[in-house]
Amino acid sequence: MEIAYSPIGTIYSPFHKLTSMPIQPLSESSAPGTVVLLPEFAPGLKDLQGFSHIILIYHLHQSHSYALTVTPFLDSVQHGVFATRAPRRPNPIGLSVVPLIRIDDNIMYVDKLDVLDGTPLLDIKPYVPEFDSPPNFRLGWLEGVKAKLRTTNSDDRFG
Amino acid sequence: MEIAYSPIGTIYSPFHKLTSMPIQPLSESSAPGTVVLLPEFAPGLKDLQGFSHIILIYHLHQSHSYALTVTPFLDSVQHGVFATRAPRRPNPIGLSVVPLIRIDDNIMYVDKLDVLDGTPLLDIKPYVPEFDSPPNFRLGWLEGVKAKLRTTNSDDRFG
Repeated sequence: MEIAYSPIGTIYSPFHKLTSMPIQPLSESSAPGTVVLLPEFAPGLKDLQGFSHIILIYHLHQSHSYALTVTPFLDSVQHGVFATRAPRRPNPIGLSVVPLIRIDDNIMYVDKLDVLDGTPLLDIKPYVPEFDSPPNFRLGWLEGVKAKLRTTNSDDRFG
Repeated sequence: MEIAYSPIGTIYSPFHKLTSMPIQPLSESSAPGTVVLLPEFAPGLKDLQGFSHIILIYHLHQSHSYALTVTPFLDSVQHGVFATRAPRRPNPIGLSVVPLIRIDDNIMYVDKLDVLDGTPLLDIKPYVPEFDSPPNFRLGWLEGVKAKLRTTNSDDRFG
């Protein structure tokens, strides 16, 4: 079974290389950018400006292979790829929750981007903590490395 | 540009029809179920059991068309589809954050499912509040209907 999607737009960021990128939106090096929807989809943005944060779902277009166990940027031991946010995955789908600054027609100005310039956009959803933010959680292997979340950038291991 | 993905597994739930389903994981009618990964991907689950919640990304396989403005289950006025979580979207990609109960080989036992039985699974990511849960937010049109989030089920409008 093959599932086919077409990009609905493009994400523009200051990041042109897979190395030295922020690894997540909260990284200190994440940056403002734009999400440009194809003009024909612009009516789908009606009332989105009321939400402070949006969920971007995108195709990790520079991810051309994967391994089932990976050593993520934040750790020195291997974990299953589904227990990490590493970009090289069986289906290279990326997910970022970012602040929405404003919308002009089909252009969303956002902050805290952690994606490559030119990333194909697949979907936009409003961020709703009642849906997306469970109140009690455990972080598995990430508990031990939480202090590094904000300051770690990417290197070439997933290039 | 067409992007092709292949399912990595299947989500099994008690919900066999698009009507009368929970509309989100926090609905009172959401239910336990299983996420069955294709056996060849099982090594990718290493260390996932340490996380209390996982993000399921899936193909909304019963969504065969879309409209750019929709009247969502929770409201009586139209909003842009990207300002809603309605299942009929240009790229019908679904996203649910669910509690992970336990893992047996390639089978994840989860709770609070809000998806149809037999839904094709595209990706699994660990839920990390530092990445996925911004501290301050506004909810747009959903602010006025928050009280209905837990008790509203689906009807046939997206069937």
